[in-house]
Amino acid sequence: MPDIVTAAMMVIGDEILSGRTKDRNIGHLADIMTAIGIDLKEVRIVPDEEDEIVAALNALRTRYTYVFTTGGIGPTHDDITADSVAKAFGVPCEYDAKAYKMLGDSYAQRGIEFTEARKRMARMPRGADHIDNPVSTAPGFRIGNVHVMAGVPSIFQAMLDNVVPTLKTGAKMLSAAVHCPVGEGTIGGPLAEIQKAHPDTIIGSYPKYGEGKFWTELVVRARTQEALEAARADVEAMVKRFATAG
Amino acid sequence: MPDIVTAAMMVIGDEILSGRTKDRNIGHLADIMTAIGIDLKEVRIVPDEEDEIVAALNALRTRYTYVFTTGGIGPTHDDITADSVAKAFGVPCEYDAKAYKMLGDSYAQRGIEFTEARKRMARMPRGADHIDNPVSTAPGFRIGNVHVMAGVPSIFQAMLDNVVPTLKTGAKMLSAAVHCPVGEGTIGGPLAEIQKAHPDTIIGSYPKYGEGKFWTELVVRARTQEALEAARADVEAMVKRFATAG
Repeated sequence: MPDIVTAAMMVIGDEILSGRTKDRNIGHLADIMTAIGIDLKEVRIVPDEEDEIVAALNALRTRYTYVFTTGGIGPTHDDITADSVAKAFGVPCEYDAKAYKMLGDSYAQRGIEFTEARKRMARMPRGADHIDNPVSTAPGFRIGNVHVMAGVPSIFQAMLDNVVPTLKTGAKMLSAAVHCPVGEGTIGGPLAEIQKAHPDTIIGSYPKYGEGKFWTELVVRARTQEALEAARADVEAMVKRFATAG
Repeated sequence: MPDIVTAAMMVIGDEILSGRTKDRNIGHLADIMTAIGIDLKEVRIVPDEEDEIVAALNALRTRYTYVFTTGGIGPTHDDITADSVAKAFGVPCEYDAKAYKMLGDSYAQRGIEFTEARKRMARMPRGADHIDNPVSTAPGFRIGNVHVMAGVPSIFQAMLDNVVPTLKTGAKMLSAAVHCPVGEGTIGGPLAEIQKAHPDTIIGSYPKYGEGKFWTELVVRARTQEALEAARADVEAMVKRFATAG
């Protein structure tokens, strides 16, 4: 069996929990993880509170191969991710010389004052590596298996592009979608039988509803092409049976 | 001080974690909670795995006033929310007589077979109350402080509309947004001072980036109008100072 690589995501920010900002990073990370063969197993959205961030991060980083965080690495007082991550790892949070110089140079070049607030963006847990930020200089960072990235979607996506090549990726999860024109209630029984007959696959059933009627998207997932095709054939045969019966 | 009422959300479903379906329920619940004065403090997205659902639910329901779940209450084998919630509460999961009759009547009326799969939707933890589903009959349910609802957004929203009037709502969190035309780096220092001077408020700073420049949305939150206005005045004065300086 190929290695299974798992991941969790922690979204940090009161603005997501209040509804003021609608998260657009979870879906993007999920898509990327699926594409490269890492199983995203859990997501937590936590407030801008140090104790909450520390507790959630320690729960996640000890359990999954990788953790990805978004949010809370800007220059304002409510950006407490670097301090919280340092605390979770039990190391000091301090100015990173390389980040400090890079930010200082960048602001000097643009004739902008390198304020105390801006200097905050050069702080990271001792021993962290940079995650480059091609959009606005201030880097994210990696410490242990935890990748700390920005919350602004365009910056998060650019940082993630830099992280992906560094990850140990698992065997890609293969998937095949089967459109089923009838609702879950019709196919639920036979589908459960098919799942039982193919224990090395994961068969998902996603109810869709629109214009007053239900239909179903069935998705077969497996780590080998053989397992995938065997289950897919059974699912397609079943759907055909019900579609023609209806 | 008015009561503080807290909530957590649990989104159940492999399809969200794989990226195949993009969640649209978190943002909606967050908006509604903020509007009625309940603090959404945490969200977890968990896979279709009983142990995971039970562990997350027990962590959340013992900690927050309310828990809201979405997903996994349909008729297929991967719909294991009712069983998992029953297990978390240590009660049997069984056919609910009222739901069974309601579903049976509805299918009979439409000339549709009441399959074993469809009957699954009448199962709920012993002692649960119904949450009406005006869209497609199959009810959600409430047990203790946990509200179990559908994952399909239109059904989730309709169920939530039925739940809201039953909730003990806290003092509404008041909020005021202040547009700040400069980036966080400029205002971070003074903003932290304002937050310190107004400990009974929560001042959030949300970086925005577009067309090559940063701006900032500042949001002051407080539980009384007095506290809100005092902090807002200070924030506005600061923004004006920087906006005219730039």
